[in-house]
Amino acid sequence: MAPSRAYIHPETDEISLPRVLFALSEPLRLAMVQKLAADGEVDSIDLGPDLPRSTLTHHTSLLRESGVAFVRAEGRKCLISLRRDDLNARFPGVLDSVLAGAQE
Amino acid sequence: MAPSRAYIHPETDEISLPRVLFALSEPLRLAMVQKLAADGEVDSIDLGPDLPRSTLTHHTSLLRESGVAFVRAEGRKCLISLRRDDLNARFPGVLDSVLAGAQE
Repeated sequence: MAPSRAYIHPETDEISLPRVLFALSEPLRLAMVQKLAADGEVDSIDLGPDLPRSTLTHHTSLLRESGVAFVRAEGRKCLISLRRDDLNARFPGVLDSVLAGAQE
Repeated sequence: MAPSRAYIHPETDEISLPRVLFALSEPLRLAMVQKLAADGEVDSIDLGPDLPRSTLTHHTSLLRESGVAFVRAEGRKCLISLRRDDLNARFPGVLDSVLAGAQE
């Protein structure tokens, strides 16, 4: 049996505020986070259907490595979701205020 | 009479969330913002007494251009303060939650 792809994620208490803010500071990634907040877990392809695959991978990796998103493989799909509870536990109010501020 | 140095600042409604988040995403700038939040208006030198002048200028300019800080000249000094009211009006909760999250 082939090993499934493993994605490395920071533990909740390893999530760093500057890295989270950096992840959210790029308009395309901020739009991805808005979509994840609205839709729950989505196929990563749907986060940027018009993007080059390398660009999409770059941004989803950065969201994962910063602790903003959780990524898992399912078959050939790569499913991604927002680590909302972890972010709220670690930095209360940051994600919600950023999402509210991004709605304009 | 020589013109005083003029510093360009974005209007409150021109302040962009991604740029604010980027400004706050760098540990040194985040520490500067924490000091401004605690101390009010400070001489820019005091934000980074051990930093090379060019590094200090880079970071204070970025804080000013992103709308996070207000900069004014007084004699030969460069005084800098947090645009707390403007940020709170524009993106309620973002600055406060980031400052709270940075206290650890």
